Amino acid sequence: MDYRIEKDTMGEVKVPAHKIWGAQTQRSKENFQIGTEQMPIELIQAMTILKKSAALANQRLGKLSALKAKAIVQAADEILYGQWDDQFPLVVWQTGSGTQTNMNVNEVIAHRANQILQDTGEVDRIHPNDDVNQSQSSNDTFPTALHIAAVLKVEDYLLPRLRTLKATLHEKSQKFQDIIKIGRTHLQDATPLTLGQEISGWVVMLEKSEHMIQQNIHYMKELAIGGTAVGTGINAHPEFGERVAAEISELTDKAFTSARNKFHALTSHDEAVVAHGALKALAVDLMKIANDVRWLASGPRSGIGEITIPENEPGSSIMPGKVNPTQSEAMTMVVTQVVGNDATIAFAASQGNFELNVFKPVIIYNFLQSTRLLADTMKSFNDHCALGIEPNKEVLDHNLKNSLMLVTALNPYIGYENAAKIAKKAHQEGTTLKEAALATGLLTEAQFDEYVDPATMIYPNVK
Amino acid sequence: MDYRIEKDTMGEVKVPAHKIWGAQTQRSKENFQIGTEQMPIELIQAMTILKKSAALANQRLGKLSALKAKAIVQAADEILYGQWDDQFPLVVWQTGSGTQTNMNVNEVIAHRANQILQDTGEVDRIHPNDDVNQSQSSNDTFPTALHIAAVLKVEDYLLPRLRTLKATLHEKSQKFQDIIKIGRTHLQDATPLTLGQEISGWVVMLEKSEHMIQQNIHYMKELAIGGTAVGTGINAHPEFGERVAAEISELTDKAFTSARNKFHALTSHDEAVVAHGALKALAVDLMKIANDVRWLASGPRSGIGEITIPENEPGSSIMPGKVNPTQSEAMTMVVTQVVGNDATIAFAASQGNFELNVFKPVIIYNFLQSTRLLADTMKSFNDHCALGIEPNKEVLDHNLKNSLMLVTALNPYIGYENAAKIAKKAHQEGTTLKEAALATGLLTEAQFDEYVDPATMIYPNVK
Amino acid sequence: MDYRIEKDTMGEVKVPAHKIWGAQTQRSKENFQIGTEQMPIELIQAMTILKKSAALANQRLGKLSALKAKAIVQAADEILYGQWDDQFPLVVWQTGSGTQTNMNVNEVIAHRANQILQDTGEVDRIHPNDDVNQSQSSNDTFPTALHIAAVLKVEDYLLPRLRTLKATLHEKSQKFQDIIKIGRTHLQDATPLTLGQEISGWVVMLEKSEHMIQQNIHYMKELAIGGTAVGTGINAHPEFGERVAAEISELTDKAFTSARNKFHALTSHDEAVVAHGALKALAVDLMKIANDVRWLASGPRSGIGEITIPENEPGSSIMPGKVNPTQSEAMTMVVTQVVGNDATIAFAASQGNFELNVFKPVIIYNFLQSTRLLADTMKSFNDHCALGIEPNKEVLDHNLKNSLMLVTALNPYIGYENAAKIAKKAHQEGTTLKEAALATGLLTEAQFDEYVDPATMIYPNVK
Amino acid sequence: MDYRIEKDTMGEVKVPAHKIWGAQTQRSKENFQIGTEQMPIELIQAMTILKKSAALANQRLGKLSALKAKAIVQAADEILYGQWDDQFPLVVWQTGSGTQTNMNVNEVIAHRANQILQDTGEVDRIHPNDDVNQSQSSNDTFPTALHIAAVLKVEDYLLPRLRTLKATLHEKSQKFQDIIKIGRTHLQDATPLTLGQEISGWVVMLEKSEHMIQQNIHYMKELAIGGTAVGTGINAHPEFGERVAAEISELTDKAFTSARNKFHALTSHDEAVVAHGALKALAVDLMKIANDVRWLASGPRSGIGEITIPENEPGSSIMPGKVNPTQSEAMTMVVTQVVGNDATIAFAASQGNFELNVFKPVIIYNFLQSTRLLADTMKSFNDHCALGIEPNKEVLDHNLKNSLMLVTALNPYIGYENAAKIAKKAHQEGTTLKEAALATGLLTEAQFDEYVDPATMIYPNVK
Repeated sequence: MDYRIEKDTMGEVKVPAHKIWGAQTQRSKENFQIGTEQMPIELIQAMTILKKSAALANQRLGKLSALKAKAIVQAADEILYGQWDDQFPLVVWQTGSGTQTNMNVNEVIAHRANQILQDTGEVDRIHPNDDVNQSQSSNDTFPTALHIAAVLKVEDYLLPRLRTLKATLHEKSQKFQDIIKIGRTHLQDATPLTLGQEISGWVVMLEKSEHMIQQNIHYMKELAIGGTAVGTGINAHPEFGERVAAEISELTDKAFTSARNKFHALTSHDEAVVAHGALKALAVDLMKIANDVRWLASGPRSGIGEITIPENEPGSSIMPGKVNPTQSEAMTMVVTQVVGNDATIAFAASQGNFELNVFKPVIIYNFLQSTRLLADTMKSFNDHCALGIEPNKEVLDHNLKNSLMLVTALNPYIGYENAAKIAKKAHQEGTTLKEAALATGLLTEAQFDEYVDPATMIYPNVK
Repeated sequence: MDYRIEKDTMGEVKVPAHKIWGAQTQRSKENFQIGTEQMPIELIQAMTILKKSAALANQRLGKLSALKAKAIVQAADEILYGQWDDQFPLVVWQTGSGTQTNMNVNEVIAHRANQILQDTGEVDRIHPNDDVNQSQSSNDTFPTALHIAAVLKVEDYLLPRLRTLKATLHEKSQKFQDIIKIGRTHLQDATPLTLGQEISGWVVMLEKSEHMIQQNIHYMKELAIGGTAVGTGINAHPEFGERVAAEISELTDKAFTSARNKFHALTSHDEAVVAHGALKALAVDLMKIANDVRWLASGPRSGIGEITIPENEPGSSIMPGKVNPTQSEAMTMVVTQVVGNDATIAFAASQGNFELNVFKPVIIYNFLQSTRLLADTMKSFNDHCALGIEPNKEVLDHNLKNSLMLVTALNPYIGYENAAKIAKKAHQEGTTLKEAALATGLLTEAQFDEYVDPATMIYPNVK
Repeated sequence: MDYRIEKDTMGEVKVPAHKIWGAQTQRSKENFQIGTEQMPIELIQAMTILKKSAALANQRLGKLSALKAKAIVQAADEILYGQWDDQFPLVVWQTGSGTQTNMNVNEVIAHRANQILQDTGEVDRIHPNDDVNQSQSSNDTFPTALHIAAVLKVEDYLLPRLRTLKATLHEKSQKFQDIIKIGRTHLQDATPLTLGQEISGWVVMLEKSEHMIQQNIHYMKELAIGGTAVGTGINAHPEFGERVAAEISELTDKAFTSARNKFHALTSHDEAVVAHGALKALAVDLMKIANDVRWLASGPRSGIGEITIPENEPGSSIMPGKVNPTQSEAMTMVVTQVVGNDATIAFAASQGNFELNVFKPVIIYNFLQSTRLLADTMKSFNDHCALGIEPNKEVLDHNLKNSLMLVTALNPYIGYENAAKIAKKAHQEGTTLKEAALATGLLTEAQFDEYVDPATMIYPNVK
Repeated sequence: MDYRIEKDTMGEVKVPAHKIWGAQTQRSKENFQIGTEQMPIELIQAMTILKKSAALANQRLGKLSALKAKAIVQAADEILYGQWDDQFPLVVWQTGSGTQTNMNVNEVIAHRANQILQDTGEVDRIHPNDDVNQSQSSNDTFPTALHIAAVLKVEDYLLPRLRTLKATLHEKSQKFQDIIKIGRTHLQDATPLTLGQEISGWVVMLEKSEHMIQQNIHYMKELAIGGTAVGTGINAHPEFGERVAAEISELTDKAFTSARNKFHALTSHDEAVVAHGALKALAVDLMKIANDVRWLASGPRSGIGEITIPENEPGSSIMPGKVNPTQSEAMTMVVTQVVGNDATIAFAASQGNFELNVFKPVIIYNFLQSTRLLADTMKSFNDHCALGIEPNKEVLDHNLKNSLMLVTALNPYIGYENAAKIAKKAHQEGTTLKEAALATGLLTEAQFDEYVDPATMIYPNVK
């Protein structure tokens, strides 16, 4: 293979000729052959947004020439357009401050910017540290990029998919609002509700999660930038942090700000913990929804079978004709992943020391994985399952009529204890509720028919 | 032992004569001999607040006589004053809807209210289900009590203790704002900051957590009451939920409301998950603070030793004179507990089916344990450790002066690479930074003294 | 309140007159008012076994007089008989080495032993550190007691209860071995098996867990004792560790040994992590068993309803006559607790530094809670649920006959694709499998009847 | 793009012309666009080993022609040699039984085997279900492949890397066995030990983990194969499971067996939970080792600084000359990942229902990720850090001599309380221990020098 020589403060390194990264990237590549998980592209993109913004801010503060700034901005834009995706080979399992990824971006931008400058005949050289990383440290750039990446992925990728599923379920809820069915608590028959009401609970789960995610992701809009090495802002201009935050806000159309206290910003990831907590709350609700869907669709003959869902693929390699609730299965597996990721993030976030937390790459890796998986599984579930949910009216009706828990409607008339006697009698003797009720002599048939009417049991019905 | 006979819909049960609970409590006591964890008293109190409020609401809605309501309210007040603490013997590990604890409260109130009525010569009897539980189901009362208990404990018990610790640390931060010290990142010497700045990071951790907890506990102010058995509100008056929420708000001086969607309220615990996520974020920050304190106080002779903390007790049963950072140890153990509790709560919250989640007792048990432990450990840490933190100025000063990372101040003047050469030279040769710098000939002594001044390195210093 | 004055190396402390603990216990009580979780009595008992064993070993090594040893042993025995349970008031959230609980036991034994000596007219005084703690440090005694408590609780309390449940289920499995029923995978109807086979899967879960727990608890039989302060054994006799382990083995009838490497023993809790991992594997299986039971018993009319379970208590405060699978609910809540405890233990175990891990109390607290809860819930589930499981033959038979997945038996004769056509046809047209099969002309009725016989589908049936 | 038409029991599907997978793979690719995590190649390889073994077994049982078997074996071998790695595009987040990956392998093998047959002029066609999947179901093949993949990765990939690190540390421990240093407990100065002893604790951690992993991975050598659809073995020959296990054992040189109870094998993953628990115990120890290394190497001037570690790369993008303990950082991040993975696996394993657990893909994904990351980080840490650990003798010696805890050696001579007085006096007055001791008059200088000798304090020293 062809190589060129790159150097850094530790000496020379051989870099593959066709790669434009520098010595520190190469060292990391060699020193950290751990796993297959590359630093997520979303983080690289966020870091590039930051580098572009920093160049613009430094230019305006008179710290960087217009020529250099322009070249850096152009190089950054090329990365943002996806032209250099193969130049960021580092894995998650590197230095815990993300220094090597910060340098990877610095080096690629510097290299590419120098090519651009060269084309213009310019001889001045752009240095990865002195220019691209000017007024910055990995210690403030990496957490800044971490926050940018998280906010963009959650707001622009996850929330739209959540809203789509919410809309689908809302429509189903409306459409099925008059289909009365048996309720179930403790997996046991209970008083009735409508299928629309049942689904409305799922809608509100998504609605609440949407709100809770929005509120909690907001905390991540505070950026560490400006804190440099330890939070004091050494080697940065006093206005640098705020100016960069403003540039980033403009580029992303989000309201990022410069964190009020940079010592917190470098060392605490409480915002990531709480925001991921909201993702976990969504996951926990999705587990419930996916489970309800597959249980309601269970059967086709010996399960609950109250709804049908789309048949997307052959379900079994041995049982011919079998159809399984596979979208629920993918979704519930994602939930277990998100719950594990939450444990990882909290553990990692707890391990800061003094002026830095050095578990940043693992935090953003898990955060982005959770976000992507939740978003994707909601879209997949929406498209391949939720949209096709249909009631199985025959079964719904049969189950409703058969229920002993309609007896609950009698409480206000004959008291809990008498009602219990009727339910038990019907259960033991295998009769209908009405037969048992009349046998007790506590009610007339007319009274029973008036009181025990599922249609009046699906809302607060006591005057 | 003396017994009396109580009965419920399943028949007769022997209850110890000196206990005023009823048949269902007794059955649960016998059927669930699991562990030693009793249903937390905070939950019992919250359920009692609810029962009192429900009686008042039912009275106003014309569903309960004034006489009965008055007796129920009086019985409830006695419980709230702590007179009947020994009448709630049930454990957490019972039915997952908390039905048995709901009935325990219903039975104790009914029994006591009947005693009260008896004293008045009244012959009408108060029934645990028909009267005390009127218009209610365990399925809406237990999650209501769960929310009330969580909100009260967090707002009235935890947050005040958080604020006390925050205030102590804020005062320390102010007091030590001019003590310049070495920074540390990756556990390695870094650029300087003040001890006050370092502690300000801790203060902001608590401040952010305070804010995040406040916002997220707010979600728990929506109450399930009014949903009754499956969320439809069967057997309740349409205004019941809102009226009870209003009564509870008045009794507790908190802004509780009736949940907009009761199907969600019975089956989802996303609010508890997200609120506990905020508690976990606090825990994660406390781990960092407690670790920093014990590391900074490590030694006394062969550790960091930059601060001293109070000596509260002999530290070792074998090493005479040893003093250990025990408050940090208690606090960090609490953190590990809260992290585990968070896993339990999310798992439990994910397991709802159809119209009910039946993991409610384990959720509130863990939620309240986390809240209590975090509150108590912050208070203990505050009183027995934080208040006594003092700088060890001699050590602080020695470490600062010795640091090679002051070289960072030279970046803007001689570039990162030259600065690196100086640091490496000093490190390898064991000299001071100044000696190494002058030996390179890159700076004059006057320049070095001007540029490398810790006092100018503790804020954004580039113009 | 009446007090007496006790002193330690830090000075005087007031101790309630009626308590026999000393100054260090009292200090801890005052300095750690955190939570309500007392140090588990099992740990106190284990520490007492250790103190007794250490006194005997020291006596034989000539380090402790026979008189003192005898008094210490007698005091220890009184504790072991439960006479002094109220003398161990300290909470879990104390110093992370458990020093204060070690001293609590040292102080109570010393105080009581001195009373005993006094009765004999002896004037020599027993010192908590120099005598009761002789040749020991909290750093080796606490992890020793931690291991002893865990081993005793698991082997003598949990495993017998596991075996009882296993026996019950084994008996059910045998009894129901000929009841053919529909299988279910993905919650969808699948090929048949017997109810006995289904339950045999649960039996083997318990059997495997039993084996895995036995193997993994074995690691905890290595004891730290003899390591003293940092693992070197300073201030102990070279034979002390082994002799104490031998005494403990004799007292407990377990094969405890002295850990080969005491540096590991003081600082690593990998044995507790792996042993609790086996408890978690049991928990995970119990979740599956408890879920299967409640699903199979769901209904009574609109669920699966293939088995019945005992009715132990009224299930609902609002729905008369409702019976719920409450033992499954208690068990599954325990499972979520154990899973959270596992997270706590691993986190705590990871945080050792240098010669000590100072998260010992939280580790043993969670370990013992898991053990106790799993044991109790298995017993409760056994007594109040598993013993009463009965097949609902009518439902079982109906579901079996109705199943489309019996079509799988045709694969070897007509191929997967033709079999799929038959199943789909029956499903779409709502017919029996036989009707659909004959309609395709692929088989004769005689062939169908021969091939599709559930009784031949419940074992490997291809020759 | 070019397509060809493939079909399955649901109809026709367009498959890219250059891909050799079939209809079901294509459907899954389209229906599950979730995340970026492909089914791990180790699982594909394990499934292929199984398919090869099944073909051989079926041939010997007379169920598959020699010609077909030969073609299947050849196709499988090509996959095992890595020739078809790009033919397995499915993601983890698919059906929870892994049916689609089972079919992916079936389809690729069938397609390729048919090509091979075609070359021989053979017209008989190999069917993915009827031939490649003969006598099998996804429900038994996937868990079988899961176990094979886990065992191979742990035994052949992880354990060798663990042993290498263990050997390195053992060598360091031996080499440094005479370097006496200060001990630290609670981060506070404690009695001395040798650097070799300290490292021996790490060695034993690895040794124990090795043993615990070996024992617990053993449980995964039981294979589900032979259970087919629900565990009964329908459509398989009675000897099929055992014969396949024997073939696999021969191919892999491991002692795999056919699981005794297939109902357990399809539905429980307790073996994976307990085996991953052992991986977590290793992780937890690695956290401790990595932390000790970075703390001991902290500084270079204002930390502990008792050892030095290799400088592998520039540590900071802003602080010139900074060198950080980056291998420790990568390792500790891996630990947090493994802890999260453990939570995911347990959650997933708990969610089985009836005859199947449908969380298999997420279990093996996490299991293999943990295994790979632990293995890689141990190798990286070994090569780039552990091998280069060197003592900083000057610092070690300084810290040792300065320590007050050498006073512990006086306990047997003057008692704990007097010893405490000396330590406190020295601490308060800032003197040496000897000065304080002599000032008390409790010992002569000769006695002090005899008793307080670090060289005699590093082993059990009481006779």
